[in-house]
Amino acid sequence: MEVIRDQHRNLSMLTDFYELTMSNGFLENHMQNKVGVFDMFFRKIPDGGGFAIFAGLQQLVDYLSELKFTQQDIDYLRTKGLFCEEFLQYLLDFDFACDVWAAKEGTPIFPGEPVVIVRGPIIQAQLVETMVLLTINHQSLLATKANRVVRAADGRSVMEFGSRRAQSYDGAILGARAAYIGGCDATACAIADRDYQIPAVGTMAHSWVQMFDSEYEAFKKYAEIYPDSCTLLVDTYNVLKSGIPNAIKVFNEVIVPQGHRPKGIRIDSGDIAYLSKKARKMLDAAGFADVGIVASNSLDEYIIRDLLTQGAKINSFGVGENLITSKSDPVFGGVYKLVALQEGDTYIPKIKISETVEKITNPGFKMVYRLYDCDTHQPIADYVTCHDEQINVRDGITIFDPNATWKKKHLTGVYAEPILHQVFRGGKSLHQPLPLKEIQAYCLQQVDNLWDEVKRFEYPHRYYVDLSPKLWQIKHDLLEEVSKF
Amino acid sequence: MEVIRDQHRNLSMLTDFYELTMSNGFLENHMQNKVGVFDMFFRKIPDGGGFAIFAGLQQLVDYLSELKFTQQDIDYLRTKGLFCEEFLQYLLDFDFACDVWAAKEGTPIFPGEPVVIVRGPIIQAQLVETMVLLTINHQSLLATKANRVVRAADGRSVMEFGSRRAQSYDGAILGARAAYIGGCDATACAIADRDYQIPAVGTMAHSWVQMFDSEYEAFKKYAEIYPDSCTLLVDTYNVLKSGIPNAIKVFNEVIVPQGHRPKGIRIDSGDIAYLSKKARKMLDAAGFADVGIVASNSLDEYIIRDLLTQGAKINSFGVGENLITSKSDPVFGGVYKLVALQEGDTYIPKIKISETVEKITNPGFKMVYRLYDCDTHQPIADYVTCHDEQINVRDGITIFDPNATWKKKHLTGVYAEPILHQVFRGGKSLHQPLPLKEIQAYCLQQVDNLWDEVKRFEYPHRYYVDLSPKLWQIKHDLLEEVSKF
Repeated sequence: MEVIRDQHRNLSMLTDFYELTMSNGFLENHMQNKVGVFDMFFRKIPDGGGFAIFAGLQQLVDYLSELKFTQQDIDYLRTKGLFCEEFLQYLLDFDFACDVWAAKEGTPIFPGEPVVIVRGPIIQAQLVETMVLLTINHQSLLATKANRVVRAADGRSVMEFGSRRAQSYDGAILGARAAYIGGCDATACAIADRDYQIPAVGTMAHSWVQMFDSEYEAFKKYAEIYPDSCTLLVDTYNVLKSGIPNAIKVFNEVIVPQGHRPKGIRIDSGDIAYLSKKARKMLDAAGFADVGIVASNSLDEYIIRDLLTQGAKINSFGVGENLITSKSDPVFGGVYKLVALQEGDTYIPKIKISETVEKITNPGFKMVYRLYDCDTHQPIADYVTCHDEQINVRDGITIFDPNATWKKKHLTGVYAEPILHQVFRGGKSLHQPLPLKEIQAYCLQQVDNLWDEVKRFEYPHRYYVDLSPKLWQIKHDLLEEVSKF
Repeated sequence: MEVIRDQHRNLSMLTDFYELTMSNGFLENHMQNKVGVFDMFFRKIPDGGGFAIFAGLQQLVDYLSELKFTQQDIDYLRTKGLFCEEFLQYLLDFDFACDVWAAKEGTPIFPGEPVVIVRGPIIQAQLVETMVLLTINHQSLLATKANRVVRAADGRSVMEFGSRRAQSYDGAILGARAAYIGGCDATACAIADRDYQIPAVGTMAHSWVQMFDSEYEAFKKYAEIYPDSCTLLVDTYNVLKSGIPNAIKVFNEVIVPQGHRPKGIRIDSGDIAYLSKKARKMLDAAGFADVGIVASNSLDEYIIRDLLTQGAKINSFGVGENLITSKSDPVFGGVYKLVALQEGDTYIPKIKISETVEKITNPGFKMVYRLYDCDTHQPIADYVTCHDEQINVRDGITIFDPNATWKKKHLTGVYAEPILHQVFRGGKSLHQPLPLKEIQAYCLQQVDNLWDEVKRFEYPHRYYVDLSPKLWQIKHDLLEEVSKF
């Protein structure tokens, strides 16, 4: 089970300032009890991939469960001269009262569908926007990237090695968490092991080798201390002429006589494809066919795929900066939009117009279902409905492209499962924390289940995210109304 | 003065695991009192720029000053079955004893020169590697990016608006800090204001406008509450047909009668160049020539430069994801390398070889000077020497390209100033915290002082970072020695 880190860390002021001016404004306008519904969704999958992985929910739940404003916060806010005392008192007495629905961590998610829904007094639902986005955007970005790297490694181990190049402390720590959800099986980051039980690994840097009079001596001293977990870094001087011969010598002189087997060698520079093939032959010839080769030099999913295509002999990959920052596409663009306001017993749908068609929001208080093939259990489409809409797939269901309604498809032999689950009711958490290992297993199983066409790295098949006719009609009517301007 | 955030946050396990296995190894080999020197330096300026900005030192000093290992850390480490009890006790009794030199925050820095030097017992100097790199890499990346954006804005205000897309919590908070050093003059992030006194700004999101029955009513209600700081977001429906006419109406009906002046309008979508010019005319015609226009739609230094080239009428820019993640180049590749080991009274230089010439390290315990033109006070070159080397520029100084020694230049009329300053002596901090505003002013003045050729965004002039003849000879001799392999 995860330890909740930094319980005393007060992040309630980690919010865009306008959330505060707006919330104060709602109160001054006596709208604080008005109930609204906000959707978090995203529009574009990082790296042009076919799906993203939802992650960060545990940290969001922790944050919302513990959300309090301290006297220090209030004193700070008062200095701004913008907030009424009633609002400051409201914050001091803050008692989270919203309902929240969210996808399970590790779930593949797609553009245009809500992945978090917050319903509650607008004064509160507005106030949590920044942290909802910051938390989910970051971890979903990293889980998505890690999963790409893991898929490229095609069954080989991928270790997250990026702490030193992460975008600050939580970028490293929660980045390691998200990378593990996406399928990495270890990290170099010790705190991620201490707090999230992600196995931390690591043996030596070049500095260890430089610290001794010779590479041989450096290897020997290391092997003597760590005989049963000995991975030697072989590229400080020359991989083939010096590093591997010295490693083999030390394996034979130190490790084998003690009844242990060496664990591996690591190559961190040079042409990994060429060097790993040569290294494999040298190790095999010396009787170390069971000793692994770790590669770790500016890797990402594309380089890993190319290395494997070229027959590189690598057992595990240490992936650093390109993973921990999602370097090739370092932003997950989740947004948080008002979609409905409660009036009596009903929800008045709200829409945000844009000149760019893809930027027009889907209005209304919604629910999302995933439609699966009854035979293969593979997901076929996501189906977005009004929140209380009953869907019946027994006689099949017709889905259509919401931007090109003549593109229709009648599906039979399908079943539907909700992908959003309620995690807060009236501000009280319903969320059951899961061991990270279980979240990872769920993620890998869900990804495994996707069509191969959706999993292509480049130009994947666009997975269907369609609206129910009822929801589509609401959107259509609102657009017609607005266009009367 | 900055508040030290999260004093109770224990980040001592935020380290690559191999720092721990190596440090334990040094102790088991009775090398813990051996003194070594490590350099932090970087090889490549983000975005192909001509210089980077050094930032993050205050957080590094805070970390090193407070570095302790808790019983929780020790208990965790013991479970790994790798560390001897003597090492665990060493950590429990940890007492930082290193000397540290570093550049001042806000200093322009260049590839190949040390920007942090750590000298001390290798068991400690090795252990702090990950946090030195993580802290300095992140903030230097963000300060460098922010400074590019600020220079593109050519005197206009730049506000950091990226929290929701940052790479986790510290990415947002310390990112805002670094962006301020680089020249941003405000942030949307309230906690950066509370803890670092960076002015937080922000008024309304589209949701505010959607919350009311009409845009006019939304503006009116806002203006009534915030008459003296009223910036209205005018693009929820239609900027020119609805947003600006409604804003002008509300300015006239609510703000002006109260004796206030409106602050601005904000445009967050559409073609900013076109819309801002139209908006400017409409505001001017209505008697609001003093009202500013804020633009905030996926901006970066290139888009800002283009907008201004096209005559966009913008008074301030809100820059989000492209700044807070340094999206176009999200990694600052600082490295930390062993460069010398103490033997008696002398330092034995150490070198790390690589097949890539640029990756070969500069050996030895060093110092860095900046050479300035006596007339213009502009920096001409950085000059890396042995740590105790006396430099004499009275009769001029000859510098040469360390990779092409026939490229020589004799400089006269120059003076030299060290850019590294000692911040720890025997583990005790000598660092005087500075108000962030002073660091920003220093940074902007230093950048202002650089040659325009170095400040070009694309293909800038490469600033000279040269070695003293003595240092060059040490490197040359070591390379000759190693190449005998």
